[in-house]
Amino acid sequence: MKIAVIPGDGIGPEVVGQAIVVLEAVAQKFGHRFEFQEALLGGAALDVKGVPLPDETMEICLKSDAVLLGAVGGPKWDNLPGHLRPEAGLLGIRKGLNLFANLRPAKVFPQLKSNSTLKEEALGEGIDILVVRELTGDIYFGEKGRAKIPGGEKAWDTAVYTTYEVERVAHLAFRIARGRRRKVTSVDKANVLESSRLWREVVSKVGEQYNDVELNLMYVDNAAMQLIKNPHQFDVILTTNMFGDILSDEAAMLTGSLGMLPSASLGEGRLGLYEPVHGSAPDIAGQDKANPIATILSAAMMLRYSFYLEEEAQAVENAVSKVLDQGYRTSDIATPGAKIVGTKEMGSLIAQNM
Amino acid sequence: MKIAVIPGDGIGPEVVGQAIVVLEAVAQKFGHRFEFQEALLGGAALDVKGVPLPDETMEICLKSDAVLLGAVGGPKWDNLPGHLRPEAGLLGIRKGLNLFANLRPAKVFPQLKSNSTLKEEALGEGIDILVVRELTGDIYFGEKGRAKIPGGEKAWDTAVYTTYEVERVAHLAFRIARGRRRKVTSVDKANVLESSRLWREVVSKVGEQYNDVELNLMYVDNAAMQLIKNPHQFDVILTTNMFGDILSDEAAMLTGSLGMLPSASLGEGRLGLYEPVHGSAPDIAGQDKANPIATILSAAMMLRYSFYLEEEAQAVENAVSKVLDQGYRTSDIATPGAKIVGTKEMGSLIAQNM
Ligand SMILES: CC(C)[C@H](C(=O)O)[C@@H](O)C(=O)O
Ligand SMILES: CC(C)[C@H](C(=O)O)[C@@H](O)C(=O)O
Repeated sequence: MKIAVIPGDGIGPEVVGQAIVVLEAVAQKFGHRFEFQEALLGGAALDVKGVPLPDETMEICLKSDAVLLGAVGGPKWDNLPGHLRPEAGLLGIRKGLNLFANLRPAKVFPQLKSNSTLKEEALGEGIDILVVRELTGDIYFGEKGRAKIPGGEKAWDTAVYTTYEVERVAHLAFRIARGRRRKVTSVDKANVLESSRLWREVVSKVGEQYNDVELNLMYVDNAAMQLIKNPHQFDVILTTNMFGDILSDEAAMLTGSLGMLPSASLGEGRLGLYEPVHGSAPDIAGQDKANPIATILSAAMMLRYSFYLEEEAQAVENAVSKVLDQGYRTSDIATPGAKIVGTKEMGSLIAQNM
Repeated sequence: MKIAVIPGDGIGPEVVGQAIVVLEAVAQKFGHRFEFQEALLGGAALDVKGVPLPDETMEICLKSDAVLLGAVGGPKWDNLPGHLRPEAGLLGIRKGLNLFANLRPAKVFPQLKSNSTLKEEALGEGIDILVVRELTGDIYFGEKGRAKIPGGEKAWDTAVYTTYEVERVAHLAFRIARGRRRKVTSVDKANVLESSRLWREVVSKVGEQYNDVELNLMYVDNAAMQLIKNPHQFDVILTTNMFGDILSDEAAMLTGSLGMLPSASLGEGRLGLYEPVHGSAPDIAGQDKANPIATILSAAMMLRYSFYLEEEAQAVENAVSKVLDQGYRTSDIATPGAKIVGTKEMGSLIAQNM
């Protein structure tokens, strides 16, 4: 099993390093062989190759079964023109690998419940949401431009969806909901946007094929409120690229433990890209402070979705849970009375607990 | 002073009724004369005239100094085609009156602090945010359409901003910040959208003219997180129409008291539209249960922004605060030990406390 490894910028290399330590423990315990090949993306690629997504990186990814990514970006590259920014590398790789579905679980770990900024009453039975965000369409990839007009400029972006694009991500969301609480909330702005009206029609139609799954339709502004009012009502949230960007981060922050949250970006085949939800955190880079758990849990998602190794995925998730039970925390998820450890120690502890 | 009154749908007529009771108390106490003229919008207009925004309504509004609106929409009109939905009436009136700036304060009233879903620690020194949302541009009003393509359909919406549109709303936000904590956070998605890059450039340039006001630039996904993590960091949030729709509702829900939140939509002149942030709540319509305070505080904003009657505006706000101090609550904002009252009694209490 070939894994392209993209450490990226900031804390990326540190957290990816510990995910590899854990993957190697998996290999040993279950008798697998993972082949790791490093590639450059984002700022790291800009510094060496002058572009955020070198051809070589695309080639390495396309020849792999899965991509493990740390994080990209940082103040150093923030003033470059759009097409040369680290983010352009990330968008390019998503589109280039046709990764149309981004899965972002927002879950409150029982051991970390007190970290949520929400009151106990609002948390209710807890938060366990999976945001399924469309990832290769919408206003991210439609035609955009700029023109001079009398007195200034005019700039535009186009949000586009096709039946096919909505269908494929909707099917995926419904299938995943079957393995969860069988509830999909599709979020759009159909009272204003034509692309949302198409989204709503297609999702409703696809939904008819899954009559064992409940489908709710919700406007994005209401969803932003309902997430705060009663997050427990949500199981799978299916939404567009732009709204998913916003809502998945809102849901993530509600858990209070951003450093724990993994993500998977999937396409038609088994090739997927796995990365933590958090960013490159340049302020703590190189200090052995970053929490590697989000990346380690991303590696667990890789085992599940790209390698179909469910048992191995659960073994990693259980090891994380055990280490939390033992009271170990990186400083970002510190709870009263916790034993604070660094990036490396957290990685080793999880590997040992496999 | 001529006020166009649009009761609208659901609880609209009830809450607007109480705002008028309070405005009449203002008139009496301060020796003003308000002339009220009713107009139809949304479902109420559809039922009588067959369109969500009759020409007559536009004429009445254009001849007025301010518009007081209840709420529009309801399940009855939810399945009409886009251009006949109640929301189309609302968008039409915003555009028709050139109301390019929507002001939405999200504030936690000290008496209602316990209603917030956020923990005390997260609330910190409290929430007192003013979202200034651009209201007549962006993806709401750009070209949109739909076409058949092989195997299905394609639908699109265009987000457009011009230098001029961004300038005027930015100036307004900076001017308002001067009367507050002198901090503007401009929210966009400049790492992906061309319209956001123009937004960011223009806001930064306008900001240079207000060097007594601090300007921060933030991406929308981060803003959705920061609102939950540390809402106290925000004073004025300046943002686009689409992002403002989402973030203002998120900020509103953080206060836990949606029924308390007013809004003002302003243009170049003094003509403004004032409406509560909450919707038409068809489930409790006609039951004397709705909280009229958001509409009453919208009327206070009208006194401030359309009539320049600052003292009168504060008198209304103080009366609301006194009634809360006295322990009166509508059921949506009930706190332990409160005296629960209906829509009408709440309106009368506020009028009496002027
Ligand atoms: C960096 C940025 C382009 C990206 C996005 O908007 O998709 C990020 O916010 C994310 O959610 O992965
Ligand atoms: C009803 C809808 C069109 C409207 C909007 O999106 O602007 C509403 O959500 C609002 O925020 O006033």
